[in-house]
Amino acid sequence: MGSEITPAVARLISLLEKLPGIGRKSAERIAYHLLRLPKEEALALAEAIRSVKEDVRYCRVCYNLAEEDLCSICADPSRDSRILCVVEQHRDLMAIEQTGVYRGLYHVLLGRIAPLEGVGPEHLTIDALVRRVREGNFQEIIMATNPTVEGDGTALYIAELLKDLPVRITRLARGLTTGSVIEYANKEMLTDALKGRQSL
Amino acid sequence: MGSEITPAVARLISLLEKLPGIGRKSAERIAYHLLRLPKEEALALAEAIRSVKEDVRYCRVCYNLAEEDLCSICADPSRDSRILCVVEQHRDLMAIEQTGVYRGLYHVLLGRIAPLEGVGPEHLTIDALVRRVREGNFQEIIMATNPTVEGDGTALYIAELLKDLPVRITRLARGLTTGSVIEYANKEMLTDALKGRQSL
Repeated sequence: MGSEITPAVARLISLLEKLPGIGRKSAERIAYHLLRLPKEEALALAEAIRSVKEDVRYCRVCYNLAEEDLCSICADPSRDSRILCVVEQHRDLMAIEQTGVYRGLYHVLLGRIAPLEGVGPEHLTIDALVRRVREGNFQEIIMATNPTVEGDGTALYIAELLKDLPVRITRLARGLTTGSVIEYANKEMLTDALKGRQSL
Repeated sequence: MGSEITPAVARLISLLEKLPGIGRKSAERIAYHLLRLPKEEALALAEAIRSVKEDVRYCRVCYNLAEEDLCSICADPSRDSRILCVVEQHRDLMAIEQTGVYRGLYHVLLGRIAPLEGVGPEHLTIDALVRRVREGNFQEIIMATNPTVEGDGTALYIAELLKDLPVRITRLARGLTTGSVIEYANKEMLTDALKGRQSL
């Protein structure tokens, strides 16, 4: 940047530019927006960022996001504790919650097995999942990984680990388009996929 | 939001969603990105936002952004103090600086006269501009407002106020497309417009 911008503004633009989906022009636009905003509103955003880093952690049981020891789903006694839905990431959990048709529990893997990116089973929460299924009382495990090569591979890897346990393992129905991602699927598509889930 | 998200994350998403060009899905994507980021990197963004609100102010002379009493351009003795370029907003100043062909000073109006939005001359820095031109030693004032109805109207309003002063008033050449905005013009177009500026 030339001399026409202050160091603080230049720094803000360069940090905003690193966010996903934000290019140079968007970063500048957002920075100038923040400059014009009443001070308390801009500082509220700074505080909200600080808060998610300070106050948000993983649920001790399912690795969902939580502000207490347990997430709001694990802490909810009205959820059906006989059924467990395994997802890659939090956004997938959110998408499924938004259908309103699922009332069981979750397990968040925090990723998927991706050998080309150096992500192995040991980088995910698979050990905790297997322990949880072994020690728990689940009747069904729904593998809700993405309908991609890596998502399918992760589901099959986990199904293999669980195959000797007395639990039914299902996967989401292929109402989803292979190669798509769950977080952008609409409610209807996800509802169909949940209702038509099949044994794996 | 349902119960699947923590209050801190929900709050961050709702604040991000208010930023220009950020929709719901982008806000969620950015929030999850910030959650995954190393703590120091996310907090650096929070700190950068705080810093622009705490440390950045308007230059006492030209209303450019500054971290001291004077902005870096007003404080630069190598700038040509006989020529003054009047812009609507900081992003326009930045776009002109990036051409590298202009070496004079600036005056930032902090907007343009827009009666339909209730923005009158009294909401801009026009009084300070007139005082500055009257007390200064300028030979030329370049009106670099946007080539829109409102930008032209603002330029004409200011030209009328300055018409009795011994100073040449010019405007940017119409290499710009009428109805476009300066901040998105490319360097070449802006360079042509600066070089071909005409008396107003």
